[in-house]
Amino acid sequence: MKISALLTSAGINIGLCVLFLSLYSVLRKQPANVRVYFGRRIAEENTRLRGAFILERFVPSTGWIVKALQCTEEEILAAAGLDAVVFNRILVFSIRIFSLAALLCVFGILPLNYFGQYMHHVHIPSESLDIFTIGNVGVKSRWLWVHCVALYIISGVACILLYIEYRHIARLRLLHLTSATPHPSHFTVLVRGIPKTAKESCSDVVDDFFTKYHSSSYLFHQVVYKVGKIQKIMTGAKKAYKKFKHFTDETVDQGCRSLTYRCCLCGASSNSFKLLNTECEQNRRKADNESSLKLDDEECTAAFVFFKTRYAALVASEILQTSNPMNWVANLAPEPEDVYWSNLWLPHKQLWIRRIATLIGSIVLMFLFLIPVTFIQGLSQLDQLQQSLPFLRGILKKKYYMTQLVTGYLPSVVLQIFLYAVPPIMMLFSTLEGPTSRSERKRSACCKVLYFTVWNIFFVNVLSGTVISQLTVLSSPKNLPVQLARAVPLQATFFITYVLTSGWAGLSSELMQLFGLIWHFIRKYVLRMKEDTEFIPSFPYHTEVPKVLLFGLLGFTCSVLAPLILPFLLVYFFLGYVVYRNQLLNVYRTRYDTGGLYWPIAHNTVIFSLVLTQVICLGVFGLKESPIAAGFTIPLIILTLLFNQYCRNRLLPLFRTSPAQDLIDMDREDELSGRIDEIHRRLHSAYCQFPDTEDVPLEKIKIVGGDEEQGSSSGESTGKESCEDPKRDLSHPTLKGLPVSRLRHAVRSITFLIRLQKRGLSE
Amino acid sequence: MKISALLTSAGINIGLCVLFLSLYSVLRKQPANVRVYFGRRIAEENTRLRGAFILERFVPSTGWIVKALQCTEEEILAAAGLDAVVFNRILVFSIRIFSLAALLCVFGILPLNYFGQYMHHVHIPSESLDIFTIGNVGVKSRWLWVHCVALYIISGVACILLYIEYRHIARLRLLHLTSATPHPSHFTVLVRGIPKTAKESCSDVVDDFFTKYHSSSYLFHQVVYKVGKIQKIMTGAKKAYKKFKHFTDETVDQGCRSLTYRCCLCGASSNSFKLLNTECEQNRRKADNESSLKLDDEECTAAFVFFKTRYAALVASEILQTSNPMNWVANLAPEPEDVYWSNLWLPHKQLWIRRIATLIGSIVLMFLFLIPVTFIQGLSQLDQLQQSLPFLRGILKKKYYMTQLVTGYLPSVVLQIFLYAVPPIMMLFSTLEGPTSRSERKRSACCKVLYFTVWNIFFVNVLSGTVISQLTVLSSPKNLPVQLARAVPLQATFFITYVLTSGWAGLSSELMQLFGLIWHFIRKYVLRMKEDTEFIPSFPYHTEVPKVLLFGLLGFTCSVLAPLILPFLLVYFFLGYVVYRNQLLNVYRTRYDTGGLYWPIAHNTVIFSLVLTQVICLGVFGLKESPIAAGFTIPLIILTLLFNQYCRNRLLPLFRTSPAQDLIDMDREDELSGRIDEIHRRLHSAYCQFPDTEDVPLEKIKIVGGDEEQGSSSGESTGKESCEDPKRDLSHPTLKGLPVSRLRHAVRSITFLIRLQKRGLSE
Repeated sequence: MKISALLTSAGINIGLCVLFLSLYSVLRKQPANVRVYFGRRIAEENTRLRGAFILERFVPSTGWIVKALQCTEEEILAAAGLDAVVFNRILVFSIRIFSLAALLCVFGILPLNYFGQYMHHVHIPSESLDIFTIGNVGVKSRWLWVHCVALYIISGVACILLYIEYRHIARLRLLHLTSATPHPSHFTVLVRGIPKTAKESCSDVVDDFFTKYHSSSYLFHQVVYKVGKIQKIMTGAKKAYKKFKHFTDETVDQGCRSLTYRCCLCGASSNSFKLLNTECEQNRRKADNESSLKLDDEECTAAFVFFKTRYAALVASEILQTSNPMNWVANLAPEPEDVYWSNLWLPHKQLWIRRIATLIGSIVLMFLFLIPVTFIQGLSQLDQLQQSLPFLRGILKKKYYMTQLVTGYLPSVVLQIFLYAVPPIMMLFSTLEGPTSRSERKRSACCKVLYFTVWNIFFVNVLSGTVISQLTVLSSPKNLPVQLARAVPLQATFFITYVLTSGWAGLSSELMQLFGLIWHFIRKYVLRMKEDTEFIPSFPYHTEVPKVLLFGLLGFTCSVLAPLILPFLLVYFFLGYVVYRNQLLNVYRTRYDTGGLYWPIAHNTVIFSLVLTQVICLGVFGLKESPIAAGFTIPLIILTLLFNQYCRNRLLPLFRTSPAQDLIDMDREDELSGRIDEIHRRLHSAYCQFPDTEDVPLEKIKIVGGDEEQGSSSGESTGKESCEDPKRDLSHPTLKGLPVSRLRHAVRSITFLIRLQKRGLSE
Repeated sequence: MKISALLTSAGINIGLCVLFLSLYSVLRKQPANVRVYFGRRIAEENTRLRGAFILERFVPSTGWIVKALQCTEEEILAAAGLDAVVFNRILVFSIRIFSLAALLCVFGILPLNYFGQYMHHVHIPSESLDIFTIGNVGVKSRWLWVHCVALYIISGVACILLYIEYRHIARLRLLHLTSATPHPSHFTVLVRGIPKTAKESCSDVVDDFFTKYHSSSYLFHQVVYKVGKIQKIMTGAKKAYKKFKHFTDETVDQGCRSLTYRCCLCGASSNSFKLLNTECEQNRRKADNESSLKLDDEECTAAFVFFKTRYAALVASEILQTSNPMNWVANLAPEPEDVYWSNLWLPHKQLWIRRIATLIGSIVLMFLFLIPVTFIQGLSQLDQLQQSLPFLRGILKKKYYMTQLVTGYLPSVVLQIFLYAVPPIMMLFSTLEGPTSRSERKRSACCKVLYFTVWNIFFVNVLSGTVISQLTVLSSPKNLPVQLARAVPLQATFFITYVLTSGWAGLSSELMQLFGLIWHFIRKYVLRMKEDTEFIPSFPYHTEVPKVLLFGLLGFTCSVLAPLILPFLLVYFFLGYVVYRNQLLNVYRTRYDTGGLYWPIAHNTVIFSLVLTQVICLGVFGLKESPIAAGFTIPLIILTLLFNQYCRNRLLPLFRTSPAQDLIDMDREDELSGRIDEIHRRLHSAYCQFPDTEDVPLEKIKIVGGDEEQGSSSGESTGKESCEDPKRDLSHPTLKGLPVSRLRHAVRSITFLIRLQKRGLSE
């Protein structure tokens, strides 16, 4: 590719970016789009926006950039949780290291490469981009030590920055742990693999075991049921409720929508929902007490066990309970809003098979994906394209800009479209794996997408770009450095266009929320559905973290070899910094949090990138027959790996478990201040299996009730709040022992009531 | 190699074996050798052997074989510990699986191979051995399904047997844990990485931390000191003691040696030693109380912390103590006699570097070892030998049996000699790694020797035997199955001779204890030294476990491809079963035990062997162009790996930690029976750093004292007994606060006393 082609591509993308950013700055001011661009704010901060028509609304502005840059880390932590801070730190790290790398490589190495071998330079715009890579440096060049020194500086500074970030995030994680609000998950252990006995009920077995072996700290427990009889009744009730909800949306609730964004059910009689709510509570209570349900008891496979102190829960989760490691498997429970209920009842014995199966599935997907990628790679090599599609030859020869477009832009776009399908598939795999929490599922999907991206964007492009149909790369690891050394500088051009299309344009479309905007439009004006006040997406870490890390990988591997990519990359990271901060603050809502567990993934990827860069450089120095530079690279690889090992020893354990000292200190403090009783009392209603937040939006019913305040703290879900009502204690005597038949009867009567009401209103 | 050459080799080895076994059965009856052949019995069972001269003593007999076969597993467990049982089970497993494999392959596959391709057979003795391998089966043979079925049967039965053994050993491990005698190690945690403070002494820091965070279960602690000032004083005292001991050996103690084997100091005044003993106790007490020693305090890096219950110690060892994972690293302590004191003071921060350094060292050794092995491999290929050493050509051409000897026997012997140097080097590496217990050190050395053996005996021979100087094997893993498939059948001959020399002859020399016998002879008649009653070797698991597992690997890989090896291997395992049982019962003494941790190593190696066999068979079926057989092998590989994963989930955790349930039950039982106070009292003297068993044999002094009984239980070391004297409590008030100067003075006066006594006696 020539420089002019690159400039064409860059021009298109810069144009698109400016267009999108301007559009965004206008669209965000339109009240109609407020749900799309300020989902989190509306849900959590009760922001009200005025709907006055003023000209200012249609003028592009940069105020949002200033706002995004001004907000501090504490604000992000408060608004979007620790994971958002980690993501922000990944961007900060990238900006820092690539600023240095760009400075070093563009001014130090780029001239060296340019004036390397072929001194007869043509006019710069029609110069091939390969002339800026290390490929242009002569064999046995005496300037290769500059590349080696640059590699040392970049690796060293990257390690120092990584360590600082790692320590910072570990400290934040500890602070998160010891934060003021007591998390119910700290006191709770999720026990799986409860052995079945013929005599006793599951609940009794759990009670007996923990009373016997953890008597001093055991509080009580709550059995998790397989989605069975009760769930069916619940689903029936929900369907009836939804029908009614839709109906009121259409007929009654027209006036009070749009600007207040507060309630959607004003005017409708709320009695029936109050009843439903109580009913659902009753169901849960039945599940907890289960004095008469024999059927469900057979299907119990897990239980939440609550302990008096955090330390006791930690201990119970860390030790091996019995001599059969498949029984009584205890792990610290996820936060209530993080629990992935439909996986909880999975038998623990299945999990290892599921894990292996999804692993195999992901690997198969990784390799099946090669087919479209190889095809796309063919597109970027114009002569091959002309061979395979002869009718194109005429067009391509005539119109010069068409050629530029096809080589510079099209490959990345097609690849991009294919890549959009990957994260949902990986998410599905992660669901099948059987994680107990949503955050774990997302993190697992993130890892899968990362491996997938690195393999299919980086390796396959590098290796099949030069030697098409060479899928036997893995079979000769010894030759890999040399092959990579040959291929990476050649593929740098493709990576630059990839940064332009996937990076820059991807960020603009992320900012624009194109999908959200279109969906919102269709819902509102085509399908004429009511606004879904409930659905506010959470941040897609599983797509964004791999994306940013992949760009880091591209940056590191190309830095010394083909430094022309670095300015483009730096622009991407700066833009990403602004855009993602804005999105985290305004658009996405944080319902669950891994507590910074994305950082070890980022750390490992950066280390991998560094080592890969060093290995490739080793190969390049070998090809250039520079034994000194190659010899100096080997200790650098060893040092980098040692640094990684040190971090694994020094900081990684903090991301795997919690330190006992801090937990004990917190327990003591709670005990002294007398807060512990309140915490214990709240544990009773912390986890409720059946009133699922997403399916039955209970807080709406509260809004209808009018007087209860809407939750303003970010960490607490609405479903939980309804459960936490202290009046509805589990030990309520009158609700015990209701049989299934009566529940079913109650639901039937509600459904009947709803039908009656609907008919009465529509007639 | 021809069959006749194999028979020559087999003949020599059978002759040697019979000779050695007969010699052993005679030598073992000689009273002079009783220390060599019955070390354990004398040390632990107080057996006394009559020294009468009878003719029976010089007639070879087989009684010992019967005795070795008759003893039950319980007897081995009682006599030689759980590790011996594990080793025994490895042999039993090998006998079982290879009996089946031999039956199946010799009668099913051998004829198929023999009548495979070339039907024009010459006279059997001059037939090449290659004709019995799968190499003789034609391409696209319709009989390859027999090989595939045999592979299925062997893999399936091996997995079933493995699982049975694994479960059995896990059960034994639990029984070992819950055995009647309370182990002090169960109540003790070894804490490393104690943070240094300027204000407080190390002991106070430990006390403060555990009183604060483990107040309910913390008992007391004992600081471990770096070998420094006190140790120097101790060494001086020991030297003086040894001088005197040697002197008394020579002059006084001549009459009461030989047959009673009880004491070596009768007649000498024992007052001075009593004094020394007390002195040593004082030193220890000083170390514990350290009220005035400021110097040593700086060097404290570890401490034994004692807990009230086993469960509390387990909990303390499993959890992360503080937010710095490098500080307060707690692990369950090893048994007192298992502690490797000189590694305890190593700073915990160093350990990970040490581990990496020794790993690199071992890998370097593995690859440097290639040089002699390649040379030896050249020896077995006669034409190459003649090329490199032309003067041999004349000799080798003339004498036919010389050729047979060189090809059939010499390579293995030379290899054998080189291999003798490896275990001590690996043991040194394992020591440098910094393990805290002797058993851990041996286990680590066992792993290293195993990797080394498998690489250097199996892979290098297989791969460099066919393609000499091909060290780039690792660089093409895809071609590995095919290469192995070509090479393994060809190298089967070498492996058969290896079984004969290293296996059979090795067992006989193990039984004979050639080194022990010669050393004993030299000590007694050449150097005229006193018999060393103390030195009874412990079983060299780090050399014998890898040896047996290597033969298993050879058996599995050759079973289907070259079944002629199986009968020889079976003889080896049978012989090994008898010999090792005999040695475990009579010769070696068990001072420390890993508690069955050798089994996971064995399990993993067998799984590796099975998968390797399957991969090689896959390659062979590929070479023979049998897609059906190859296709059926792939699910077998997957099933074997799944089985391994199941075992890792189901049984391996029991080998990593102890189940809380059993520990709590034991704690309760002790509490109810009131035994717990006695246990706590004994903990005070369980671990003593300075009176080292090997250097100062304190029990001798007790024997001099006369009335104290000699320890008969196998698990208790002598050093520990002297420490356990309840009168010598740590809280003895008069011994507190003795300054270093006074200690030094005391030692000087003892040394002076000894000199005086020596002079008086010699004059």
